[in-house]
Amino acid sequence: MADQDQFLDVIDRDEAERRFRAALSLIPVGSERIPLSKGLGRILAEDVVARVDVPSFDRSNFDGFAVRASDTFGSSELAPRTIRLLAETLDAGKEPTVAIQSGEAVTISTGGMVPRGADAILMIEHADVRDGMVHVRRAVTPGSGVAYAGTDIATGETVLRAGTVLTSRETGVLAAIGEAEVEVWRQPRVAIISTGNEIIAPGQPMRPAAVYDSNSQVLADAVRELGGLPRFWGIVRDDVAALRSILHLALAESDVVLMSGGTSKGKGDLCYRVVAELNDPGIVVHGVALKPGKPICMAATAGKPVVILPGFPTSAIFTFHEFVAPVIRLLAGRSLESHETIPATLAVRANSEIGRTEYLLVGLVKSDNGLMAFPMGKGSGSVTTFSRADGFVTIPRHTEIVDAGQQVDVRLIGRQLEIADLVVIGSHCVGLDYLLSQLQRRGIVSKLLTVGSSA
Amino acid sequence: MADQDQFLDVIDRDEAERRFRAALSLIPVGSERIPLSKGLGRILAEDVVARVDVPSFDRSNFDGFAVRASDTFGSSELAPRTIRLLAETLDAGKEPTVAIQSGEAVTISTGGMVPRGADAILMIEHADVRDGMVHVRRAVTPGSGVAYAGTDIATGETVLRAGTVLTSRETGVLAAIGEAEVEVWRQPRVAIISTGNEIIAPGQPMRPAAVYDSNSQVLADAVRELGGLPRFWGIVRDDVAALRSILHLALAESDVVLMSGGTSKGKGDLCYRVVAELNDPGIVVHGVALKPGKPICMAATAGKPVVILPGFPTSAIFTFHEFVAPVIRLLAGRSLESHETIPATLAVRANSEIGRTEYLLVGLVKSDNGLMAFPMGKGSGSVTTFSRADGFVTIPRHTEIVDAGQQVDVRLIGRQLEIADLVVIGSHCVGLDYLLSQLQRRGIVSKLLTVGSSA
Repeated sequence: MADQDQFLDVIDRDEAERRFRAALSLIPVGSERIPLSKGLGRILAEDVVARVDVPSFDRSNFDGFAVRASDTFGSSELAPRTIRLLAETLDAGKEPTVAIQSGEAVTISTGGMVPRGADAILMIEHADVRDGMVHVRRAVTPGSGVAYAGTDIATGETVLRAGTVLTSRETGVLAAIGEAEVEVWRQPRVAIISTGNEIIAPGQPMRPAAVYDSNSQVLADAVRELGGLPRFWGIVRDDVAALRSILHLALAESDVVLMSGGTSKGKGDLCYRVVAELNDPGIVVHGVALKPGKPICMAATAGKPVVILPGFPTSAIFTFHEFVAPVIRLLAGRSLESHETIPATLAVRANSEIGRTEYLLVGLVKSDNGLMAFPMGKGSGSVTTFSRADGFVTIPRHTEIVDAGQQVDVRLIGRQLEIADLVVIGSHCVGLDYLLSQLQRRGIVSKLLTVGSSA
Repeated sequence: MADQDQFLDVIDRDEAERRFRAALSLIPVGSERIPLSKGLGRILAEDVVARVDVPSFDRSNFDGFAVRASDTFGSSELAPRTIRLLAETLDAGKEPTVAIQSGEAVTISTGGMVPRGADAILMIEHADVRDGMVHVRRAVTPGSGVAYAGTDIATGETVLRAGTVLTSRETGVLAAIGEAEVEVWRQPRVAIISTGNEIIAPGQPMRPAAVYDSNSQVLADAVRELGGLPRFWGIVRDDVAALRSILHLALAESDVVLMSGGTSKGKGDLCYRVVAELNDPGIVVHGVALKPGKPICMAATAGKPVVILPGFPTSAIFTFHEFVAPVIRLLAGRSLESHETIPATLAVRANSEIGRTEYLLVGLVKSDNGLMAFPMGKGSGSVTTFSRADGFVTIPRHTEIVDAGQQVDVRLIGRQLEIADLVVIGSHCVGLDYLLSQLQRRGIVSKLLTVGSSA
């Protein structure tokens, strides 16, 4: 059978990545104009150039009086000069109807527009008003108390550059220059298809031999975290016609298609067969020398990636992060993520198969000699291993044993390393659960590492 | 006037925080049950206990044959033992109809349910099938290739604890135990009211003396980033009746009310007047000895916070992060954020007013002797200062001068410090903008620090 031949042609991890990326166009999927109010978290698709000055007028920084600085020169507490106060009051938002002449002042509020003729603001604390005259108790210099038009942002200035992720800091600047809409990269639409007769949706009653579908949830949320727009196309039975039909519907409406389940050699695995029908170029990788994740199948058609992830949860999410996540980031207009690694001491000996790269998921525990890395021993069928691991150690293709006590580099998973206050290593216990929950309520974070017994 | 009296009673930053928090109930605003598919980023309101085993049955880890291990003992490539292959094929999802007897084997797929009587899986690679008999080329031990029911997650096990932020790692685990809904803390509803005759909405044509409303956008997005649900109640003119009416509508439908603008002493500032009408307890702080942000007014009524933020953008967002953000985090069920500080050398001398805490926003620049901190000199009316600063230095109440070259601790703003590849210190220039944009397209990140001239 052709598929078995190709599956046996297992290739190196880096070669797999190279072939997959070569078949794709790794540029943003397009841009769209959206209301600024929906902009948070999106990526700017173009430079934004200010079309107005900020402030747009010479603005008072204080409550006080708009004056000519020269009219205040020589004033002091003991020898105040006096200036005639005009009737107008320049509250914020009010356009002045008069210009100031020498010897004149106008009352102005913080944020008010400085009238023509005035070149400084005398703070209200430094003046007294009696009989229509301002008594100046402190002299001011020209420009004092005035934020001149365009000093914060000037018309024509590039305020934000393409590729910037919009946080609240950036959306505020866009509002300040009056932009009600923003041109951002479109979020890549990622189709997610779960396959397998054994898969049932969460919320359904469990039945013998069945498995709740966790892959579609974890993939959809991981896609969201990367800036993509996931769409779940449902759980498809092991039926070639049904799979083919859903795959083509999903392809037509998506930028990326992810199938999970169905990449091993069992008779029930039909995803490969329908993906093998794609061309331009079709399948580029089937089988990678890595663990977990060996059976991953990567294809592309007309520049769109189509990936069959292994059905087992740890394998699925691990290969997603290795091969698919960087592609989604690039299609979304983001830059590639830099991965943080941290040194640790391997706590127990790890064996690996010669000829394939092995990723050893580990939990980190603080010790007197720095961090200890404990392998999480539940295998690729586990749903908890990936979610509870702090990171992983890469064991190269040609290494068979990493001894206990050896220094390793741990690549961290997730945003930041959270070292637990209390680590429990062993098996699950309901009584312990209760205690740990009570501790969590008191702010003590615990972590349960189950190692060894169920490997 | 009562408001002026109270405003003059400026208090210390820590005392302000203490008074404000004492007037609030700093517990989550309540919980709600939502579909798991909407769970990403939400906070668990209760411990989640597994109601099923994962896997829910003894599951095969490989494609191969379910056997009794004892039937394989002594087998080798040269001396295979043989086992009779039953007709049934156990694909994933199929419940076995037979039990295995000694001397019998059943074909099974990865993920298939191990039949009663079998205690090991013989991998397909280690066996040959001829004439209805399995020829065993390698012996297996009992338990080999089987993931026993409940070894990943056991019924009754606490899989996630209250207070956990749901990322894709957690939502996948919830799906795996069949939970289609999840109990999370309700997102606090935060009303945002912009006030001032000078304020106009982005997208409107600019008019003299007017200012685009940036505070409502930056506050709404900052609230979203903290896990709250912002609602913008519009821009209200300087009119006591209109302000009072909106404030009471907003209070009825929100957990927190934020007004911006209208806390200084100018005649146009009426927010204070309507907030002063609240009781239980009403205003607890008006005026804090800090810069930027002195005019902030904090109130509470029936446990709900009501805050009038200063109208100037830097003051508004700074005081929001200092006083309001921690409150929203607690109402949302999150823990308080730990702030990261980093040592740096102050690049130029900074003067501060005795008697108030000053927060000096700085940009960080790499030098041969570590990081240099450059004060961002645009003042509290600027919208760009906060958005472009890397962090801030706190100058205590009783310090008047921090000399150039002095070591300072910089508290970082935003997720992580991104040191630019190229730093331009000086004034804005359109030609430079063009060059920097071209560099950004080539992956070179630049930062523009405008210091000095416009302070």
